[in-house]
Amino acid sequence: MVDYNLKSLLEKLKEKRPLVHNITNYVVMNFTANTLLAMGASPVMAHAVDEVEEMVSFANALVINIGTLSKQWIESMLKAGKRANEIGLPVILDPVGSGATSFRTNTFRNLAKELKLSVVRGNASEILSIRSDYVRTKGVETSHGAEEALETARAAAREIDSVAAITGPVDLVTDGARVIRCYNGHPLLGSVTGTGCAATAAIAAFNSITNDSLEAASAGLAFFGLAGEVAGAKANSPGSFMVALLDALHEITPEEFRGKARLEEG
Amino acid sequence: MVDYNLKSLLEKLKEKRPLVHNITNYVVMNFTANTLLAMGASPVMAHAVDEVEEMVSFANALVINIGTLSKQWIESMLKAGKRANEIGLPVILDPVGSGATSFRTNTFRNLAKELKLSVVRGNASEILSIRSDYVRTKGVETSHGAEEALETARAAAREIDSVAAITGPVDLVTDGARVIRCYNGHPLLGSVTGTGCAATAAIAAFNSITNDSLEAASAGLAFFGLAGEVAGAKANSPGSFMVALLDALHEITPEEFRGKARLEEG
Amino acid sequence: MVDYNLKSLLEKLKEKRPLVHNITNYVVMNFTANTLLAMGASPVMAHAVDEVEEMVSFANALVINIGTLSKQWIESMLKAGKRANEIGLPVILDPVGSGATSFRTNTFRNLAKELKLSVVRGNASEILSIRSDYVRTKGVETSHGAEEALETARAAAREIDSVAAITGPVDLVTDGARVIRCYNGHPLLGSVTGTGCAATAAIAAFNSITNDSLEAASAGLAFFGLAGEVAGAKANSPGSFMVALLDALHEITPEEFRGKARLEEG
Repeated sequence: MVDYNLKSLLEKLKEKRPLVHNITNYVVMNFTANTLLAMGASPVMAHAVDEVEEMVSFANALVINIGTLSKQWIESMLKAGKRANEIGLPVILDPVGSGATSFRTNTFRNLAKELKLSVVRGNASEILSIRSDYVRTKGVETSHGAEEALETARAAAREIDSVAAITGPVDLVTDGARVIRCYNGHPLLGSVTGTGCAATAAIAAFNSITNDSLEAASAGLAFFGLAGEVAGAKANSPGSFMVALLDALHEITPEEFRGKARLEEG
Repeated sequence: MVDYNLKSLLEKLKEKRPLVHNITNYVVMNFTANTLLAMGASPVMAHAVDEVEEMVSFANALVINIGTLSKQWIESMLKAGKRANEIGLPVILDPVGSGATSFRTNTFRNLAKELKLSVVRGNASEILSIRSDYVRTKGVETSHGAEEALETARAAAREIDSVAAITGPVDLVTDGARVIRCYNGHPLLGSVTGTGCAATAAIAAFNSITNDSLEAASAGLAFFGLAGEVAGAKANSPGSFMVALLDALHEITPEEFRGKARLEEG
Repeated sequence: MVDYNLKSLLEKLKEKRPLVHNITNYVVMNFTANTLLAMGASPVMAHAVDEVEEMVSFANALVINIGTLSKQWIESMLKAGKRANEIGLPVILDPVGSGATSFRTNTFRNLAKELKLSVVRGNASEILSIRSDYVRTKGVETSHGAEEALETARAAAREIDSVAAITGPVDLVTDGARVIRCYNGHPLLGSVTGTGCAATAAIAAFNSITNDSLEAASAGLAFFGLAGEVAGAKANSPGSFMVALLDALHEITPEEFRGKARLEEG
């Protein structure tokens, strides 16, 4: 067990109600907002180049998600990210589909170069695409195992000076030196769209409570994965699972989070 | 009790099945459409400058919502709004996040200046932002009490010649002279994204049945709030609450609406 | 009964997990992705002109849906569609709201002219709008009966060399010569937004399993309609129906599909 004080983190989150600014994809906007609300954070979605700098300036964290990318949005992502960097806000990147098209891969690499990222969260193929050209993602789903990606992720984390969080059957979180494994989760999470993106938003919410991004990413994934477990105990199919998942995000207590998070170092 | 004939209003709505044209934000489009369908109205979403005037011309009401604003959309909002004004359709504005960024505040003020609005629905901070510069909204959530905003709202309603509807624990609806209070509602409405926007759409649906916008706004908020109460009696967490809310919007009968709406004047 | 091997089709679909590339409207993106995931396919949403050709090149089918159209998207639809045609992928078109505005009608006709479409799925008014100018759609809902549209659809199918699928109380599928009727379905499908669009995506998933587009369209509509029936046996209102629908899409077995699909020729 890692000795993070998860109980205290969740207590503080619910007390602070951090505002998470999301520049995210159309598919998951609604579910991401509902995830943040359910867990006790406050979402705002804004992407216009005319307002992202002002909006992010009173947020507590910024999520950038490239899931339905277009050129005009990249400028907003960079503007918001640079302003967030200036004022010391955590910037969490979800490089959805990176590795699948060169447009996404290049955008991921460019964002990682231009911005100081706190956490990058993706599946193995997406994270791997930061470094190598040979990767092929099947749409937005991974074609690589997480363990296979670990060494690359470690190197990538060092190179871009960010925590890398690779989600899969077991999630891996690394800052380039330490590695935390998260065993929480449920297979049905893969049958609901946007659960990865929502986990990214959960990480952002925790990163507005702690500056330790390794801790924030681990806590976010454990919390979201635990909600998946609670939902999976109630529902066997994706429709009712999605409903139970939002319920669980709301119902998990700080005490329960401490008791049921399964994080291990090494 | 206000003497609106709520039973008849809802009966007529279900019979007429009014078409509500929404130029709204990405986050809530799906939930708004489902809200309108559940209550017996018919939604259409269209935002292209190439078609909004034609589309609105056979709608029964227009909703303009600035929740995920960008410059290109403002032109469409103005075009659709002006056409709606020409043909006498009610235009309902939801100034999401106005007060938070100057882009939104300016857009709210400009829309209110350029268009004849029937109802403006927002939280206290959003409504307040029509007149004063000192306001700061926390993202899209209010940082002002509704009562605190009442006098400003009354003045604002007179100034822009529109009904102002301020939602909060108790909703306030004013045309600048009269004030209607709505006591229907449920705390979990704040844990589901887009409930405010959906309430705005409900107001639009009622405003296509009655030309009295004070009545339409009061009925819309009472109806949506009552659906929240019905849902809250069945569900304790936001996922299942959201499902129960859509069910309730469908199930509340005209008779039940008359019996359980809690509107008071003064 | 039509002698399609529906059991085998669904088995192959679940085994292959086809990647369906959707260029679709904002309102239904989330529900469409969840529909495809629930039934065992894999969704990707991408619309940027910079990447649609690359993305579609490793998909198994392409869905084009004009529900929240804007000019910039049409270019992407054409690019993706042409690339799909080149590499022999099925292209499924959903002309949402065609007939309502000239912008949509013209786009529908232009897409049908520029692309080789495998299936066009819409309500009667939408399908009719391919040929005649007198049609008026009420928003995105039909104002024509399906039977009334059959002869036009048959002619249209021949003209554009595509299968036409007209959904309504009884669905009609025609390649210009043969006509298949699908009796599966449930009234509550009309109270949830995006069910038509999701049925279109289901057709695309089946068309990536069989090259016979008449079979794919029939199977897709029967499968989706059957899921509606299963959901309607559990839920009486749109919120819980939508949840039950996603569950049913996941739970219907190939065996059950064979037994309960109601397709008839003629």
